[in-house]
Amino acid sequence: MELEKYIRVIEGFPTKEISFKDISPLLADPAALKGASKEMAKYVKDSGATLLIGPEARGFVLGAPVALEANVGFVMARKKGKLPGETLQKTYALEYGTDTIELPKFAIEKGAKVALIDDLLATGGTLAALKELVEEAGAEVTLILTLIELEDLDGKKALGDTPYVSLIKYAH
Amino acid sequence: MELEKYIRVIEGFPTKEISFKDISPLLADPAALKGASKEMAKYVKDSGATLLIGPEARGFVLGAPVALEANVGFVMARKKGKLPGETLQKTYALEYGTDTIELPKFAIEKGAKVALIDDLLATGGTLAALKELVEEAGAEVTLILTLIELEDLDGKKALGDTPYVSLIKYAH
Repeated sequence: MELEKYIRVIEGFPTKEISFKDISPLLADPAALKGASKEMAKYVKDSGATLLIGPEARGFVLGAPVALEANVGFVMARKKGKLPGETLQKTYALEYGTDTIELPKFAIEKGAKVALIDDLLATGGTLAALKELVEEAGAEVTLILTLIELEDLDGKKALGDTPYVSLIKYAH
Repeated sequence: MELEKYIRVIEGFPTKEISFKDISPLLADPAALKGASKEMAKYVKDSGATLLIGPEARGFVLGAPVALEANVGFVMARKKGKLPGETLQKTYALEYGTDTIELPKFAIEKGAKVALIDDLLATGGTLAALKELVEEAGAEVTLILTLIELEDLDGKKALGDTPYVSLIKYAH
């Protein structure tokens, strides 16, 4: 399925220099949502993962249907203070300042095989932090998966040796 | 399927008086995620809706798999400033202050039949605002659907005559 035609590119959002890749048309089209979910689910299953984790908020909107299609569980990675109960936390550097990502502690079991998903790979900061957090909890990250990859930003470098797959590639 | 056993109730989050209903265990269990998605998708299909809209962020994590299962499109309703391109906006009252919800203009067609979904109905403020916004755009809201309903808060009153369904009920 040619998924790229369901991505809407909007120049200058959220800031002047950004060429925003909007997944809204893909989500709004039942066949494209199904096609993308099935294709991404295949990679999740092939990786041996039994759990899929995605960061808020666009990681949820792709992650949950891919988990459903792959027949694995889904876990929300959230910004600080959004998750109840005991959490695992990781603070990581942004271009300016820092951010903290959290996971529900009960959901990450030692020895579990886990895949990570997001809509887009740019510099890879969030996904790299999430990978470290999962590994520190004793689980194994078998795959990192994004719908879209911005190749010039070289985010793959931040992900280390973990297998990485994207379905749609843009220069930036 | 007895979905209630996959909800984790955490007292005193995010504030002292709240008994938080955490859907994380449901999402993390493949059979529960599938069971809830299938059951909610049946209501969406029966309502005649061809599009499902959910507010960020937990409306995404349930809405997208339900849309996949119901074979309808999914649209993200987001907080102000998060969506690129032309948007439809609605500002609504909170207990203290106001909030603004946005939809991508291209996705809401006149005459479309639309269902709304969220994880939980409390006072119904966000879903009522979303309903008004969709109706102002000339589309019809055929169903409002939440996984959980807090009955004592009487959020149904805010939703008016639109058919409303929830799968799991708590007093508060």
